[in-house]
Amino acid sequence: MPTSVSDITSAIRPVEAGLSLVSDTINDIISDSDPRLGCFLDYLKDTHGKMLRPAMLLLCCQAFSNAKPIHIKVAAIIEMTHAATLLHDDVIDSAQSRRHKPTANQIWNPRIAILLGDFLLSRAFAISTTLGRSDVSEILAKTTDEICRGEMLQGSQRNNFDITVADYIEIIDKKTAVFFSASCQLGALLADADEESVENLSAFGLNFGIAFQIADDLVDIIGDESTAGKTLMRDIAQNNLTLPIIHALSVLPPDSKAELIDSLTTGVATSENLNSLLTSAGSIKYTISQIDAYVEKAIKHLNCLSDDSARKSLTKLAQAVIPEKI
Amino acid sequence: MPTSVSDITSAIRPVEAGLSLVSDTINDIISDSDPRLGCFLDYLKDTHGKMLRPAMLLLCCQAFSNAKPIHIKVAAIIEMTHAATLLHDDVIDSAQSRRHKPTANQIWNPRIAILLGDFLLSRAFAISTTLGRSDVSEILAKTTDEICRGEMLQGSQRNNFDITVADYIEIIDKKTAVFFSASCQLGALLADADEESVENLSAFGLNFGIAFQIADDLVDIIGDESTAGKTLMRDIAQNNLTLPIIHALSVLPPDSKAELIDSLTTGVATSENLNSLLTSAGSIKYTISQIDAYVEKAIKHLNCLSDDSARKSLTKLAQAVIPEKI
Repeated sequence: MPTSVSDITSAIRPVEAGLSLVSDTINDIISDSDPRLGCFLDYLKDTHGKMLRPAMLLLCCQAFSNAKPIHIKVAAIIEMTHAATLLHDDVIDSAQSRRHKPTANQIWNPRIAILLGDFLLSRAFAISTTLGRSDVSEILAKTTDEICRGEMLQGSQRNNFDITVADYIEIIDKKTAVFFSASCQLGALLADADEESVENLSAFGLNFGIAFQIADDLVDIIGDESTAGKTLMRDIAQNNLTLPIIHALSVLPPDSKAELIDSLTTGVATSENLNSLLTSAGSIKYTISQIDAYVEKAIKHLNCLSDDSARKSLTKLAQAVIPEKI
Repeated sequence: MPTSVSDITSAIRPVEAGLSLVSDTINDIISDSDPRLGCFLDYLKDTHGKMLRPAMLLLCCQAFSNAKPIHIKVAAIIEMTHAATLLHDDVIDSAQSRRHKPTANQIWNPRIAILLGDFLLSRAFAISTTLGRSDVSEILAKTTDEICRGEMLQGSQRNNFDITVADYIEIIDKKTAVFFSASCQLGALLADADEESVENLSAFGLNFGIAFQIADDLVDIIGDESTAGKTLMRDIAQNNLTLPIIHALSVLPPDSKAELIDSLTTGVATSENLNSLLTSAGSIKYTISQIDAYVEKAIKHLNCLSDDSARKSLTKLAQAVIPEKI
C-alpha cells in the first residue's frame, strides 16, 4: 500500500549527504546546555522522518547549483516547522505512535508535546532571523500562515457531509501542498534559478503535495498501522471527510449513503467495513486515479529542467506517492 | 485579593491611546478575507486582555520619547505571542474559562485552540520579518525560546516534592519574567534610550515578572474564580508545585507534610482546605512577603529614569501586583 518507502529512499539518494548536514544542523539548533531538558530534546533529535521536504528543497537546488549553507539552514527550518505541526497533530488526535515510535504525548503528556512543538517553532524562528534574506523569511511566514488557515478551514468543515471535492482539494492545498511547494520554490530560488524554473518547481511541489495528501488520507482509512508506523483512522475519529468518503457519498444510493453517514457519526466505522464499502462504491479506484492525475500534473512541470539527474529523481519521488493499483 | 485591576487600569492610563493602536494593529494582522474563518478570528479579536506587556513596553518607551510605529508593531507581536501561549495553556489544562469568557477549546475543541495559537505565532512571525531590525528579532526569538525552556523545566519538575524555592524562581524567571523583561527592554531600546537605562528597565521587568507570577500562582490556589475570570486550581491539577506549597512542605511537621503530599497526589486537595493549611503554616504570609520583596527590587531599578511620569506609572503598576495583606 502507499507509499513506497524504498522508492522514496532511492529517489532522495542523490541528496543524502545534504540531508545528513540538515539533520546535524537540526540537532545543533535544538541542543541545550541544561541537562534537565536532555530527555525532551533527545526525543526531538531521534525523531527525524524521511525528511521529504528538505529532500525536495535540495533536489530542486541541485538542478541548478550545489547546496550552499543557506540551503541547509532553510531546509532545517522547514523540517523543524513540519516536526512541530506533527507534535501538535498528535496531541489533537491523541495519537499513540508516529514513525514506529511512541508519540511525545504518549511518553509524557500533552503539555510536553505542545511545548516541544512550540520550542521547535521558536528555534526555527530564531534561525530564520539570521538568514539576512527577507524574501525567504517572507515565503516561510506566508507558508506557515497558509498551513494554519488550511487546518482551520478543515476544522470548519468537520461533519459537513455536503463537502465537495473542490472544498477538500482547497483544504489539502493549503494545509499540506503549499509546504512542499515552498520547499521546491526555496530550493530553486536560493540556487539563483531563473524565474520560470522557480515557478515551475513551485507548481511541481504543489501538485506533488496534493497527491501526497490524498494518498496519506487513503492510508488513514485502508492502511495498515504496522506498515504506516503511526496511528490510523484519525480522520474518521476527527470527522474529517477525505476523498474516498466524499466520493462514496456522491455515488452511493440514498440508503447506503445514510448508512455510511450513520457509521461515521456514531463512531462505529472500522477500517474493514469502510474498505469493503469504499471498494464496492469504486471510491478507492477513483481516489487512486486522482493521485495519479496530480502526480502526472506535477511531473509535467519538470520539463523546464535541463538537469537530467534532478528531473529523474524528482519524477521518481512523485511516482513513489502512487499506491500500487489495487 | 491579588491583583488590583483598578490600580493596573489607572497605572496604564498614560499609554491608553498607544494600547488602542496596538489593539487595532493586532486586529488588522489577524484579519482574513476568507469568511469561513470569520468565527475563529473574531474570537481572537475579542479576547485581548489588559495588555500588560504592551503597556509596559509603551511606558518604558514613553520615558524617553513618543511611541513610533515600530513600538506599536513590536507590542502587537508580543501580545499575540502571549495570547498564543494562553491558548495552548488552556488546552493543556482543559480550562473552561479565561478573561471571563469560555476558552477556545470549550467553544470548539482542542484542535481549533492549538491551531489558533499556531496561527497567532505564525502571523506574529510574519510581522517580525518586516521590522528590518535584526536586534529586535533576536530579542524576540531569544524570549520565546526561554519561555519554552521554562515551561519544559516546569514539566520536568512536576511531582517533585523536593523542589527548592530557587528551582521555582528559576522556572518562573524563564517562563514568565523574561517576557516582561523583554517588553521593557524593547520599549526603551526602540526609544533610543542609553544602555544603562535599557539594562535597568530590563531588570525592572524581570523582577516585576517574578512578583507577578508568584501572585498569579497564589491566586490559582486561594483565589476566587468569579473575580479571577478564569479556571483556577490548575497548578494543583497539573502537579506543579508553587511557592506557598513549597514553603509549607519545608516548614510543616512530618505528619502534616505527608498529609499535604497525599492530598496533592490523590487529587483531593480543595482550595478551602489548602487555604486553611497554608494559612496556619504561615505560607500565605511568606508568599506575599516574597511578592513584596520582588516588587521593591523592581522599583529600585526605576531610579535611573529622569522622567517622573513614566516612573510613577511603572511604580504604580508594580505595586498593583501586591495582594492586599491578609
